Amino acid sequence: MSPTMRRLDAREAEFLSTLDALLAFEAEADERIDAAVSEILRAVRTTGDAAVIEYTRRFDHLEVSSMAALELPHAELKAALDSLSVEQREALRIAADRVRQYHERQKIASWSYQEADGSVLGQQVTALDRVGLYVPGGRASYPSSVLMNAVPAKVAGVGELIMVVPTPRGEKNPLVLAAAAIAGVDRVFTIGGAQAVAALAYGTQTIPQVDKIVGPGNAYVAEAKRRVFGTVGIDMVAGPSEVLIISDGSGNPDWVAMDLFAQAEHDELAQSILLCTDAAFIDAVAAAVERLLPTMPRREIIARSLANRGALIHVDSLEQACAIANRIAPEHLELSLETPEPWVEKIRHAGAIFVGHHSVEALGDYCAGPNHVLPTMRSARFSSPLGVYDFQKRTSIVNISDAGAQTLGRVASILAHGEGLQAHARSAEMRLKS
Amino acid sequence: MSPTMRRLDAREAEFLSTLDALLAFEAEADERIDAAVSEILRAVRTTGDAAVIEYTRRFDHLEVSSMAALELPHAELKAALDSLSVEQREALRIAADRVRQYHERQKIASWSYQEADGSVLGQQVTALDRVGLYVPGGRASYPSSVLMNAVPAKVAGVGELIMVVPTPRGEKNPLVLAAAAIAGVDRVFTIGGAQAVAALAYGTQTIPQVDKIVGPGNAYVAEAKRRVFGTVGIDMVAGPSEVLIISDGSGNPDWVAMDLFAQAEHDELAQSILLCTDAAFIDAVAAAVERLLPTMPRREIIARSLANRGALIHVDSLEQACAIANRIAPEHLELSLETPEPWVEKIRHAGAIFVGHHSVEALGDYCAGPNHVLPTMRSARFSSPLGVYDFQKRTSIVNISDAGAQTLGRVASILAHGEGLQAHARSAEMRLKS
Repeated sequence: MSPTMRRLDAREAEFLSTLDALLAFEAEADERIDAAVSEILRAVRTTGDAAVIEYTRRFDHLEVSSMAALELPHAELKAALDSLSVEQREALRIAADRVRQYHERQKIASWSYQEADGSVLGQQVTALDRVGLYVPGGRASYPSSVLMNAVPAKVAGVGELIMVVPTPRGEKNPLVLAAAAIAGVDRVFTIGGAQAVAALAYGTQTIPQVDKIVGPGNAYVAEAKRRVFGTVGIDMVAGPSEVLIISDGSGNPDWVAMDLFAQAEHDELAQSILLCTDAAFIDAVAAAVERLLPTMPRREIIARSLANRGALIHVDSLEQACAIANRIAPEHLELSLETPEPWVEKIRHAGAIFVGHHSVEALGDYCAGPNHVLPTMRSARFSSPLGVYDFQKRTSIVNISDAGAQTLGRVASILAHGEGLQAHARSAEMRLKS
Repeated sequence: MSPTMRRLDAREAEFLSTLDALLAFEAEADERIDAAVSEILRAVRTTGDAAVIEYTRRFDHLEVSSMAALELPHAELKAALDSLSVEQREALRIAADRVRQYHERQKIASWSYQEADGSVLGQQVTALDRVGLYVPGGRASYPSSVLMNAVPAKVAGVGELIMVVPTPRGEKNPLVLAAAAIAGVDRVFTIGGAQAVAALAYGTQTIPQVDKIVGPGNAYVAEAKRRVFGTVGIDMVAGPSEVLIISDGSGNPDWVAMDLFAQAEHDELAQSILLCTDAAFIDAVAAAVERLLPTMPRREIIARSLANRGALIHVDSLEQACAIANRIAPEHLELSLETPEPWVEKIRHAGAIFVGHHSVEALGDYCAGPNHVLPTMRSARFSSPLGVYDFQKRTSIVNISDAGAQTLGRVASILAHGEGLQAHARSAEMRLKS
């Protein structure tokens, strides 16, 4: 039997092109999905509730006569929370509290300063009025995602948070509803797919228009979000999840193998890569992978993910490992090092850095505090974890004194004439006194 | 002759639907542009420099044998700066300095905190490595836009800022090149259109791949940016520019008329709206519009913009005006009021608020300090002015102590089992001691 994971050596001539090929991933454009989503958006935009009810009947096999029947009362969220085991309820509460505490530190505040001539400049920071949170139904329905999206919105001070979650044939996930209760979600509709995105983006007779839509979804949801962007804000459209582990051989090979599995178990497109300076340790991790894999309930998904997109890579040095990490710009980076701290600031591009052997990604996924919605597919080069700042926005404040208008007006006039915009120039000149 | 601007009354029954119709704007999808852009992106991605050179020959009528000939040496930027009048050079310098001073206050910093068990959580903030700045050629080639995009990037600490600007038939705009010199742009290529966006997004043999592309452009550029989003970051795709003026009748009607013109002169889709509590003042503004319009060099554009998209609206009260402003979420809002300050915080959604009679928008467009790249088409509901924060990104830091892994590991394990992710659970459990 061939080993589960490929082995690469960063010192080989072809290494960088092999790595780039391994990283390459493009969501295929699917014309069938495009056309279906386009039609659904048009129908919901035109006929509102009626279209949402009809699509929910067709796709989720739920028959209702009015949108009101698709709204979950608060009592039902509370009941879901009460139905959990004490252990689960406490775990959700601890996670929510820690996520809240961490995100409180992300709030941005208004600021301003006064100039010598009395002019005041600054930015006024406000929360979004209303946000929509998409939660997938079925297999990928995660209560942790509800917390990670809802808590930052509430910390930001969003006025109303509306969750949508499909419940095919009426099947509800009590953990998801309990998480909504804990996170303080304001309203919940049991709708999903492109029709739910459309309802939130355009508003219907029953569902109010939101200002931004966040949360993960399938290809239909992703395409719908892409299309309504501009009408409302959206979060990033996420790609497959990724982990990169940098090891100096100081850790426990079983821990490393299990951390690779934890990424790979999401789905077969997930990517798990190890960069290690120690060839013998790589051998030990490879052996642990083979030994532990058969014990995993999701071993088939894990095996496919590791075989197709995983790699164990021997590197010359930790400097080389960091250079490769910055090229990969991974969603999750574990620094599985004896003395990890000095290496943190060498990492310029990563969604989250897990520092040291005890900072396993799973803690960050659930309860360490930082958000688990992170930039994928090299987008950590230019974007950030989901945060409170994604639910706040800034307005520039320009309060120019009479004296300030005299000096600035002359500068603006010269520049406006240079651009051939005479009304700009004259509107500034009109405020001049001489 | 019919008056240039329509008059509306916010107390009429049909007012809100009339307003919504006036605000409605959708960039038409153009299949010809889509197809052309798709082909250009493919060609540049596949053949790099050769495709860029060929498109530049075809669209900009510039014949060169190598990409090197399309790069402007620094000496040429310096020469453009030296060629300006002292007055223009000083105006550009003052504007750049003021924009820099204001934006210095926007820098976000890394932060972290330690918990009782020794765990450290935080965010590490870094600048983008490399940014592309698109500058249009021809009519809409504005040196002020170079400053407004380039200065925040440099303040953020972006490593390399690469500007692209088409120079059809070799025609260069010395003000634009001078602004690039003042702003500290690192490299300039005289290329434009979708081919320039593609070169920046994918990289070519000569042009390095960037991490984000900012700056305005025509429909081809906008479509190209939309398509490369994900491979690189982009700024917002801007719609027509807008101003909303709220007046209590205390100002000078000529100033208000000229401020409406300054918006309208951009192009005929630009939108200029006045909300005023004083009917007599509205009459005076309407008369000023008719009187001043013939004196404006760009009167034809202004007249079309005001006739098609402008309005003078009588409102009951300033409270009503603020409610309407929050519905419009204008790019620019002027509070043309005797005592404007108390009203600033009633405005929840606007790109920039210009406070009081002397805070004319033109000052903000050029030299007050705040950015003139602002959210349009109601997107101030969920987005912010361009700023230093758009050229920085955050990485979560998760440094969990041995003790922290004991408490958090139990919570993570419970939640991971609840989600059916056993490898997540076991990777946390492996760190437990008992």
